[in-house]
Amino acid sequence: MPQAVKRKIFNDPVYGFVTVPSELVFRLIDHPYFQRLRRIRQLGLTNLVYPGALHTRFHHAMGAMHLMDQAIEVIRSKGHTITDAEAEAANIAILLHDIGHGPFSHALENSIVHHVTHEDISGLIMDRLNVELGGKLDLAIKIFRNQYKKEFLHQLVSGQLDMDRLDYLRRDSFFTGVSEGIVSSNRIVKMLNVVNDQLVVEDKGIYSIEKFIIARRLMYWQVYLHKTVLSAEHLLVNILKRAKMLAEQGVELFCTPALKIFLYDKITKTAFVKRPEVLEAFARLDDYDLMAAIKVWTDHSDRILAELCRNLVDRNLYAVELQNKPFSGSYVEELQRKARKKYDVNKDELPFYVFTGAVQNKAYSTDNIRINILFKNGQVMDIAEAADLFNISVLARPVKKYFLCYPKQLRS
Amino acid sequence: MPQAVKRKIFNDPVYGFVTVPSELVFRLIDHPYFQRLRRIRQLGLTNLVYPGALHTRFHHAMGAMHLMDQAIEVIRSKGHTITDAEAEAANIAILLHDIGHGPFSHALENSIVHHVTHEDISGLIMDRLNVELGGKLDLAIKIFRNQYKKEFLHQLVSGQLDMDRLDYLRRDSFFTGVSEGIVSSNRIVKMLNVVNDQLVVEDKGIYSIEKFIIARRLMYWQVYLHKTVLSAEHLLVNILKRAKMLAEQGVELFCTPALKIFLYDKITKTAFVKRPEVLEAFARLDDYDLMAAIKVWTDHSDRILAELCRNLVDRNLYAVELQNKPFSGSYVEELQRKARKKYDVNKDELPFYVFTGAVQNKAYSTDNIRINILFKNGQVMDIAEAADLFNISVLARPVKKYFLCYPKQLRS
Amino acid sequence: MPQAVKRKIFNDPVYGFVTVPSELVFRLIDHPYFQRLRRIRQLGLTNLVYPGALHTRFHHAMGAMHLMDQAIEVIRSKGHTITDAEAEAANIAILLHDIGHGPFSHALENSIVHHVTHEDISGLIMDRLNVELGGKLDLAIKIFRNQYKKEFLHQLVSGQLDMDRLDYLRRDSFFTGVSEGIVSSNRIVKMLNVVNDQLVVEDKGIYSIEKFIIARRLMYWQVYLHKTVLSAEHLLVNILKRAKMLAEQGVELFCTPALKIFLYDKITKTAFVKRPEVLEAFARLDDYDLMAAIKVWTDHSDRILAELCRNLVDRNLYAVELQNKPFSGSYVEELQRKARKKYDVNKDELPFYVFTGAVQNKAYSTDNIRINILFKNGQVMDIAEAADLFNISVLARPVKKYFLCYPKQLRS
Amino acid sequence: MPQAVKRKIFNDPVYGFVTVPSELVFRLIDHPYFQRLRRIRQLGLTNLVYPGALHTRFHHAMGAMHLMDQAIEVIRSKGHTITDAEAEAANIAILLHDIGHGPFSHALENSIVHHVTHEDISGLIMDRLNVELGGKLDLAIKIFRNQYKKEFLHQLVSGQLDMDRLDYLRRDSFFTGVSEGIVSSNRIVKMLNVVNDQLVVEDKGIYSIEKFIIARRLMYWQVYLHKTVLSAEHLLVNILKRAKMLAEQGVELFCTPALKIFLYDKITKTAFVKRPEVLEAFARLDDYDLMAAIKVWTDHSDRILAELCRNLVDRNLYAVELQNKPFSGSYVEELQRKARKKYDVNKDELPFYVFTGAVQNKAYSTDNIRINILFKNGQVMDIAEAADLFNISVLARPVKKYFLCYPKQLRS
Repeated sequence: MPQAVKRKIFNDPVYGFVTVPSELVFRLIDHPYFQRLRRIRQLGLTNLVYPGALHTRFHHAMGAMHLMDQAIEVIRSKGHTITDAEAEAANIAILLHDIGHGPFSHALENSIVHHVTHEDISGLIMDRLNVELGGKLDLAIKIFRNQYKKEFLHQLVSGQLDMDRLDYLRRDSFFTGVSEGIVSSNRIVKMLNVVNDQLVVEDKGIYSIEKFIIARRLMYWQVYLHKTVLSAEHLLVNILKRAKMLAEQGVELFCTPALKIFLYDKITKTAFVKRPEVLEAFARLDDYDLMAAIKVWTDHSDRILAELCRNLVDRNLYAVELQNKPFSGSYVEELQRKARKKYDVNKDELPFYVFTGAVQNKAYSTDNIRINILFKNGQVMDIAEAADLFNISVLARPVKKYFLCYPKQLRS
Repeated sequence: MPQAVKRKIFNDPVYGFVTVPSELVFRLIDHPYFQRLRRIRQLGLTNLVYPGALHTRFHHAMGAMHLMDQAIEVIRSKGHTITDAEAEAANIAILLHDIGHGPFSHALENSIVHHVTHEDISGLIMDRLNVELGGKLDLAIKIFRNQYKKEFLHQLVSGQLDMDRLDYLRRDSFFTGVSEGIVSSNRIVKMLNVVNDQLVVEDKGIYSIEKFIIARRLMYWQVYLHKTVLSAEHLLVNILKRAKMLAEQGVELFCTPALKIFLYDKITKTAFVKRPEVLEAFARLDDYDLMAAIKVWTDHSDRILAELCRNLVDRNLYAVELQNKPFSGSYVEELQRKARKKYDVNKDELPFYVFTGAVQNKAYSTDNIRINILFKNGQVMDIAEAADLFNISVLARPVKKYFLCYPKQLRS
Repeated sequence: MPQAVKRKIFNDPVYGFVTVPSELVFRLIDHPYFQRLRRIRQLGLTNLVYPGALHTRFHHAMGAMHLMDQAIEVIRSKGHTITDAEAEAANIAILLHDIGHGPFSHALENSIVHHVTHEDISGLIMDRLNVELGGKLDLAIKIFRNQYKKEFLHQLVSGQLDMDRLDYLRRDSFFTGVSEGIVSSNRIVKMLNVVNDQLVVEDKGIYSIEKFIIARRLMYWQVYLHKTVLSAEHLLVNILKRAKMLAEQGVELFCTPALKIFLYDKITKTAFVKRPEVLEAFARLDDYDLMAAIKVWTDHSDRILAELCRNLVDRNLYAVELQNKPFSGSYVEELQRKARKKYDVNKDELPFYVFTGAVQNKAYSTDNIRINILFKNGQVMDIAEAADLFNISVLARPVKKYFLCYPKQLRS
Repeated sequence: MPQAVKRKIFNDPVYGFVTVPSELVFRLIDHPYFQRLRRIRQLGLTNLVYPGALHTRFHHAMGAMHLMDQAIEVIRSKGHTITDAEAEAANIAILLHDIGHGPFSHALENSIVHHVTHEDISGLIMDRLNVELGGKLDLAIKIFRNQYKKEFLHQLVSGQLDMDRLDYLRRDSFFTGVSEGIVSSNRIVKMLNVVNDQLVVEDKGIYSIEKFIIARRLMYWQVYLHKTVLSAEHLLVNILKRAKMLAEQGVELFCTPALKIFLYDKITKTAFVKRPEVLEAFARLDDYDLMAAIKVWTDHSDRILAELCRNLVDRNLYAVELQNKPFSGSYVEELQRKARKKYDVNKDELPFYVFTGAVQNKAYSTDNIRINILFKNGQVMDIAEAADLFNISVLARPVKKYFLCYPKQLRS
């Protein structure tokens, strides 16, 4: 009797099921480093605007791996060789591509950690796992870092049409309920092919690609950069900055041991590399450390910290204005003047109450790995030129918007 | 020009949108007591089996209110009078019906709090809100407690076909991805009517009701009482019991101030009523307090507590067996003997490692408020008799199952 | 450069896409015999109750083949050998399993053709196609007729858990909008396995199977045997019977040449086998021949035919009563008396106006190929015994209902 | 006891249910003129490319009325008065807006009927129904023809953001399975408002409107003007032209009496107005008359007619090329030369085999009733100016494409 291969299955409301393709992959999913992603929301504080958006990086990574598995099957069925080892490595590369994300995704990067990106940390964690597993991730890491000869495998992991984007657009629109972002991930995956070691999309899928680029732009402005989401995220960043400031002054703050290191030590990239306990602490840090601390800080003796924390916990967010040009200095100063009076804060503390900034996004970038269309006659063309219905090159220009945040109480 | 009524809208991937029906309802949603529900998951640890099941009691309460609003419109359209005040009160009653739920839903009730149900606490919180709002919740509370003359309004809030169940079955199946639980909530709501002040369903909807009862049974055994979910929940309960035990011995445990009260004080129902700070602490307690503490306790000096916590955090759950009859004493003793040897625990500590229990569920109860079917000839009949396709009275008998949990390492 | 395999893709709102697995399969789909299925609705006149139910046997056959393709992949991944030739043959067998269906599915069988089932005709058409293709369908036909050594392949085509049922339940619930019938086809397919050459379902899927049997029963009574659907189908059968009666008397009837043969000749099974033009005419007959004729017959000089046709075209259907026991003779006679008076018809014509009948359905049959559950310990058990939540053996008893149809105008 | 209002409910897989808002509306739905729409597919021959696209004008009209009903409720809730009579009239106007559509939607207009649009015929049919109903449609007809003082009601029926478009985009994407066309109809309807008697969309819905315009463009090119759909529709038009040509020569053609009038008489707009039997015949004509005839004509003695019909019935469509500029004369001539040789046809018959044409579409038109956005400060702005993410004014320029059709057999 043949030996049945037992393949673990995960439930997923987006795709129905995600099948774990190999034993090694299952070991990685089971690892505490990966299980931590169950406690990090994919979209940070977006649930304050879209209450369903509570899905985690764990689920997203599983979904991206599911698409990778399908993409590999499609490309193989079109006559290209992908060995089992390469397939497993590509699956691992996409599974682990975001493992370095911290609590609330980008909150730490912008406040208490300096010049360390989540990509850096993903790399460090993958290296550590590779050591633990006796080098079994060598090929996956090569693909992740684009050091493997078959470049298209890297493009499936990280490019403008990678499995990461195909999953997150679809997953985020599912959980937010924003149907504008629905992307025919399955259709696009079925149209993938490889020419000269480059990932391409067959021309039958050209409208789906155009729709994909448009959906991405829509999701940016309707969800990811939604002004109330921006307002919540800046409130969180301000809380962390204030806490860090107090910690540097030696003020005592309730926090978990893992968070303590990041509040009370100066954490640079060097620290991550040189001090093993830093990476170890990071690998224990998740949304719970931050939120539990913030809830306790609502009663802190530092009036500013306490107030900011209460505002987040009770969802009393900043008023926020968003426009296409910078805000006039006089308008901002007027608000600042009101704020100083009302909150009795000094000049250094003012940015916790009134502040401006800018966000920008390109729907398609001509600097990054392009999306190439394969025509029936064999010609390969950048989607920015090949696009049939929409002017993609216009969408390649960045859209920049300026925002202004201030307490709702200052509204005239 | 007529004054436009501004009605706040919430996004919901299940229904599209939930419209807030009145200013007073919006004030309640905005209240910190209700905002807390954003931090309490509807299905506790179920996400360890169904990773999408991260939705909160906040979203469920909004959804149930959405159905209530529709039900009221349907019943009015069939010629029954429901005043605007009654409609608002019914909306409020369903919105607040679960406000007394604690972290991970039932975790506290079963471990560190004694003889206080979440219904008790919901009542206490509603009373406190009513005082704060100068009596504006009087009617809502009457409906909630079934003290209002129009009994069908209470039945919409709490019965075997209430808006609570109609929402949670549909919502839970959406987020878990278990299509078995899909319920035609909209169809059922359209079929509601009132006869002699009792809620009834028109006979056109009889199959939908039969399906609803069946879906409920399926969801119970496929999701709510899924053996791995049971295993995770009992791990959490054991953690809390161990922590409480240590706290009673004066051992120091990392925890937020709100959790501290519940660990170190004896909390009875009297305490809730007499000591205002107890209810206040409860109103600050959510999933974050527990999970943050548990993560820190993974390094606690108490070996048992630390081990249980590591098991939960890294999702190394108990092995669990589920069967229709009690487990044989000898089998359980065999496992206990192994456990004592392997973990070096005494008899009192053994239940943290090996334990049995039972769960049961009735798909339909003849003790509770019945589901009544209205036939075209005016006759009203209990669904257990009226059912056409399935033997509902059989489904009214409880199904009881026995479970046995033990560390995976003990598997022979 | 490797030769890319071009695989034709069909759009399907149910599964997204259906990929045609081989060149031979594509030739069959392209054949006029199969293209005819584009003009035969899967659910006959059900759209008069569920207006979305316009999907065709063409789409259903494609969907069933899609599930077959997945089932084969799943079973192979569990270590069982299925050769490429066997896989293609199984795909063809399911694709063609319903090719012998006539217009409006069962309308002809019950009126103008005698003792010829659609299964008979499917067999005849498959044989003819096999001749045309030089024997390439030999293996497919063996599987279809259960004459091939690997019996589980036949069970995938025709059994109580075949790909036919898995597709039609899901597809019919999609197009009718009856969410009760939604079946986790994908989940069930993933749980398929083979033991001793018999198709089995792994025990993880037991709830999905129970739900499948229940969904089937619900779809029967809510859709397939919906009383208004019954009423419409009997109206159609009565129209065809009346037309046949007139044709036998030599009365002229507008009709297409293909329909003419069936109206004016006596068509038995022998005729199908012996007279090639009969099968040829059948292969040209579809919903359009019938409906176009019926529309013209609304002006026919035979009063009864004209009236019945007008009733169908304008959706003025019979009133219909459905109950669990036979109708009392006196009630029926009373209606008949009214009808004779109102419509001035003789005794022979009365059954066109007032008639009774019975329908019955078993959700699960113990006479047919069983659904077997495979437990982890290797044990295999009939679902009727293995079922955990519902009493499937009760569902195996047939439900029989009696109906009574009469013109709405006779309603007292 | 209050008198229950009985409201008829229709099943709809798109919205769940459509409730018939009044008795008069139900009478119209029940009328043979409206029931005819059950036999006219919304998307003609599109099902030859998207096999699910079999939905009818009946279902679309019901869906558009459902959205109208919701839109009226939303606008009322924002403080605008709409009387019950106006609401019913608006519902009727949208219900009947397409009642003049003939078989396969546009097939007749382009072949055998001259200078009569379906809008003309809709008007004629509405007038006739109004006579039949003793003037009860007066107000509905005024709204339909934009002769009623409240212009926004007409805009809901016919404009660039009318309920017609909101329904068909969503419905067509549901049944084709092209997720690109999914439009948040519900969200848009919730954002409707009225300013100075003009329909506007509140600025919160601006992204949904941009998505709506983009989705429309995508659906045009991916579905409505899909090259294979064009090919099928031109085959049908050529069949009708050839049949008409033969009829004018007195050649006998199998057809229903209703179709006969249109083939053998010269049907102008005057004929529709002056000869009551023309409108009556039209009101009996549907997809079945055409398709039944075409199937019979596959054996017609006219070689060209027979061949074209066989091609349609067996789905052997023209090869079609689609490009952004006109085809070169020499390329077309080359194909024509081949065709004349291969098919032995004369110059007049050549266009049945090889022909070119052009299609064009504007995603948004500045000539038609605009889509206006209402900003919070009260300002109202055309979406072409207000658009935030996409350059809508670019989308307002028509896209024109040229097609070339010829028998597949001529492919070199």
